[in-house]
Amino acid sequence: MLSARATRLCYNGCMDKGRLEAFSDSVIAVIITIMVLNLKVPAGGNITDLRSVGPVFCSYAFSFMFVAIYWNNHHHLLQAATRISGGVLWANLHLLFWLSFAPFGTAWIGAHPTEPWPCAVYGILLLLDGVAYTILARALIKAAGPKSILAHSIGNDPKENLSLVIYVVAIPLAFVRTWLSGVCWMIVAFMWLLPDRRIERVLQDESTGED
Amino acid sequence: MLSARATRLCYNGCMDKGRLEAFSDSVIAVIITIMVLNLKVPAGGNITDLRSVGPVFCSYAFSFMFVAIYWNNHHHLLQAATRISGGVLWANLHLLFWLSFAPFGTAWIGAHPTEPWPCAVYGILLLLDGVAYTILARALIKAAGPKSILAHSIGNDPKENLSLVIYVVAIPLAFVRTWLSGVCWMIVAFMWLLPDRRIERVLQDESTGED
Amino acid sequence: MLSARATRLCYNGCMDKGRLEAFSDSVIAVIITIMVLNLKVPAGGNITDLRSVGPVFCSYAFSFMFVAIYWNNHHHLLQAATRISGGVLWANLHLLFWLSFAPFGTAWIGAHPTEPWPCAVYGILLLLDGVAYTILARALIKAAGPKSILAHSIGNDPKENLSLVIYVVAIPLAFVRTWLSGVCWMIVAFMWLLPDRRIERVLQDESTGED
Amino acid sequence: MLSARATRLCYNGCMDKGRLEAFSDSVIAVIITIMVLNLKVPAGGNITDLRSVGPVFCSYAFSFMFVAIYWNNHHHLLQAATRISGGVLWANLHLLFWLSFAPFGTAWIGAHPTEPWPCAVYGILLLLDGVAYTILARALIKAAGPKSILAHSIGNDPKENLSLVIYVVAIPLAFVRTWLSGVCWMIVAFMWLLPDRRIERVLQDESTGED
Repeated sequence: MLSARATRLCYNGCMDKGRLEAFSDSVIAVIITIMVLNLKVPAGGNITDLRSVGPVFCSYAFSFMFVAIYWNNHHHLLQAATRISGGVLWANLHLLFWLSFAPFGTAWIGAHPTEPWPCAVYGILLLLDGVAYTILARALIKAAGPKSILAHSIGNDPKENLSLVIYVVAIPLAFVRTWLSGVCWMIVAFMWLLPDRRIERVLQDESTGED
Repeated sequence: MLSARATRLCYNGCMDKGRLEAFSDSVIAVIITIMVLNLKVPAGGNITDLRSVGPVFCSYAFSFMFVAIYWNNHHHLLQAATRISGGVLWANLHLLFWLSFAPFGTAWIGAHPTEPWPCAVYGILLLLDGVAYTILARALIKAAGPKSILAHSIGNDPKENLSLVIYVVAIPLAFVRTWLSGVCWMIVAFMWLLPDRRIERVLQDESTGED
Repeated sequence: MLSARATRLCYNGCMDKGRLEAFSDSVIAVIITIMVLNLKVPAGGNITDLRSVGPVFCSYAFSFMFVAIYWNNHHHLLQAATRISGGVLWANLHLLFWLSFAPFGTAWIGAHPTEPWPCAVYGILLLLDGVAYTILARALIKAAGPKSILAHSIGNDPKENLSLVIYVVAIPLAFVRTWLSGVCWMIVAFMWLLPDRRIERVLQDESTGED
Repeated sequence: MLSARATRLCYNGCMDKGRLEAFSDSVIAVIITIMVLNLKVPAGGNITDLRSVGPVFCSYAFSFMFVAIYWNNHHHLLQAATRISGGVLWANLHLLFWLSFAPFGTAWIGAHPTEPWPCAVYGILLLLDGVAYTILARALIKAAGPKSILAHSIGNDPKENLSLVIYVVAIPLAFVRTWLSGVCWMIVAFMWLLPDRRIERVLQDESTGED
């Protein structure tokens, strides 16, 4: 039983982690799935008609991977979280807001894969996603306090900052060659995908006592 | 084990809070995400082609914020709730019904940002959302009883009534200048966004014993 | 710990109620929300442009109510369920399959509200939903056994059978006058909406000891 | 309380089963429901206008059944799982990625039901889904260890391998007669649907002591 006072204060400030996670999951699930609606069904029934789908397919596959990485990281970030403040709540919604542009950016770059502007805009969206994620991480650390486990474990992750730097570099590169931006984004993606296995192996070696 | 009688009665009247929250979350997650489908991908690949997306982007950003505020408030309202009656169930579905027009209203105002009717219709939708929310709050209080914590904590929230008044005022203003309605809506939005931090600071000061 | 045998058998036959409910909720939430995408944004920005939205709005409002009634009943049906057999699983998916045509039926009747065929097809869909719901109820009773609470409480609900009869009657009526079908559907809807409150009042009177 | 080290390692490697299931369910729910958006509402209001919907309806019904089978199997696979490694996480996302093409494949084959290429592409997608599912099963077994229940119960399921063989055969058959591919797919579907009841009967006989 909460006192009337506590309930009233809670009305604006706090939220349990479970519902924040569930809502974020639902939004990300819808984002990742409606992107596929951009794969316009070809008018004809020939293999040549499928050729036009090629670039959209590639941009979809890449965006799917990116949103999946965010979902994965978002989960781990919240798993370590202890307190959901109002700031965390809105930082989380801010991240979902920029992630929700993935279908738009994916469709535009898929329709014009060799032109600089769609590529630059896609790069800006990736940067904004990265910045929003960093803000969320900072908000969670602030809510948990400077001496929390969260502050120690994600407080100075070089991978996060390096990603942001590469995203910034990728934007002007779109005006040199669009595939250069693509290479930058792939580097960031692999940075987040590959280490998982290495770290896990360490973890497994430890738990089984092997080395 | 429930008796056959109780099960039968329950068939129509009661529902557990968890599933009501989960369903509402899913619906709101879909609403907030399909709005982005209105951001039509520009035909060309130039920065000038992006200019047409501008007003739709603004209306999307605003609607995202509004639906997010409703999601947040809806959660806190249900968190304090104790009993889900049939009336609460339908009041909740009624709120989701009006919220589901957000993509329509957002697309129309985004396509005609300077014309009065799309702006007025958007304002009417916001008012209907607000009224539906108030009805839900009343239904929850009625279900919980007049002496419940819920009745004390949200029974006479001036913010709710003030929002409704501003929404009403914003509708005719659409025929004077559409941006005047926009200002009204922003006032309501900030009213729901800003105090959170102030109240939380109080809460935090108390719990850490500082002042 | 399950034996290898039990796990293998379970691979095909059983499912926990929670995930069945959660999946059904997600599907119904998407169905109820994407229906609103049929509300095409008018080309112009005048109130006269909104007139064309009228019939689609009405068909949407009605379908929203119908899907909401199914969600509500589905929940209460599963709440009383004890065993999810393979038959229940597929009966549930069969119900979701027919419910998923709601956006299609709603859009067609909304575009041609006075023509008999869209109206008849909509009526057939409602009938199929009703039949699928009855099959699900029978499958749940069969899984729970003839002496279960479920069999007693929903085994001979006259409301269910009466709904099916009215749905059947409404189909040919579409070729006489389309609004006659509409009246039939409204009768079914009110039949499921109204009693809730009456039963609840009984329930409340009992629990508070008043009469 | 986790040590800072453990939290950091966990940041990349582990995930609880519940959230993996919930996310997968949400994605599959959206996939299965947005497929129905391909059922374009006929321009006219006559029964003859509905004829054009026929092939799309059939392809939708078939795809609905297929995605439903995957949802069902996915659930049982994860129910038996004990450890979610990074490999499992990405194998699961890989499966969701290929499943997300169901709306595209369904729409193309529905629009050109008698032409070989849409049929072959649909067959390739079904094969990729099957391969992705097998990879997920292998990843789960690897994570659980060679002596786990999971390895015993799903380690050498002949149904899985047979499905893949039939899928491979169905692809070239699309260029002979498209309906031959359709027959192959139906065989796979019934293979996964029918045994359920037989196994369940065995299970029920045992638990009731009959034979």
